[in-house]
Amino acid sequence: MPENGTKRHTIIAWMEDKPGVLNRVAGLFGRRNFNIESLAVGHSETPGISRMTFVARGTDRDMRQVKTQLYKLINITRIEDVTYNDPVMRELALIKVQAASEDRAEVMQLVDIFRAQIVDVTLDSLIIQIVGKENQVNSLIELLSNFGIMEMVRTGRVAMVRGSTSQTGIETDTAVPAHANGHH
Amino acid sequence: MPENGTKRHTIIAWMEDKPGVLNRVAGLFGRRNFNIESLAVGHSETPGISRMTFVARGTDRDMRQVKTQLYKLINITRIEDVTYNDPVMRELALIKVQAASEDRAEVMQLVDIFRAQIVDVTLDSLIIQIVGKENQVNSLIELLSNFGIMEMVRTGRVAMVRGSTSQTGIETDTAVPAHANGHH
Repeated sequence: MPENGTKRHTIIAWMEDKPGVLNRVAGLFGRRNFNIESLAVGHSETPGISRMTFVARGTDRDMRQVKTQLYKLINITRIEDVTYNDPVMRELALIKVQAASEDRAEVMQLVDIFRAQIVDVTLDSLIIQIVGKENQVNSLIELLSNFGIMEMVRTGRVAMVRGSTSQTGIETDTAVPAHANGHH
Repeated sequence: MPENGTKRHTIIAWMEDKPGVLNRVAGLFGRRNFNIESLAVGHSETPGISRMTFVARGTDRDMRQVKTQLYKLINITRIEDVTYNDPVMRELALIKVQAASEDRAEVMQLVDIFRAQIVDVTLDSLIIQIVGKENQVNSLIELLSNFGIMEMVRTGRVAMVRGSTSQTGIETDTAVPAHANGHH
């Protein structure tokens, strides 16, 4: 039972792309008994830096603690909790659904409405690809479950803050201001 | 330096959605000094079961060892190396690109050609969403890099074997045949 004030937080972490880094990160979550709802790690715009997005439930205070702990790990270059930044949030899902010829037209209608795509077809099944916000993906899954979902994979949420400020793996908050560099 | 015969493997693992499971999985990779290139964990079609897709470089023998080790972990219900199964493979990327008004038309052409989408716009930047095979995503990124990529997030690869056989988190290979259930 979640305590009052818990909510799903979306956190982005940048880390050096080296063996064992993900291990240490996951180890930290394990020790604190956090359950991560989803996690996605891939290349960032900077070679050698991976970008991880994870979704975890907790209070703001829990998340500040996670952030503090993550920063203590070497190879982590930056962490942002973007929960309150109204970021662009997307998820990709592949859904294999039972659809013999008599059901196919109805499934294809749903696919059109959700701007999804059919990426594989057999005589009695379809694989549907959808990208969207989580609730859109959930809605399509619910509708397709009437036909029979054979198999499903979801990437988990990725997020990006809107606007033209860049959010790279380099921590800019702690940059030394120009007037403090010794050249008075 | 990779030894002869190494290649990128795509492996799917199903696991119980409990705190610490991902920790133990990542711990195994860390100990073996594997570098995972990408990793995505989200809900599967079965409540309480998460599905992880990861991409790692190694020989077939390395991967069989990983599979054996993963199976020893409790909470892991199934593992498949789908590298040679010609699965549907997709990745989602969000790319924030510099594009003042004079560049916007050219960027939008590229977006159309790649069947990507613009999901956020400011006076001097765009966020582009693309789903595709990795090489398609890479091609768009390369073209957009001429304009200046401010920020990028990729989900990592997800994969699903084609056809109507279902691939659930329940290991069916080891199911007891009907004739062996004691009712001769």
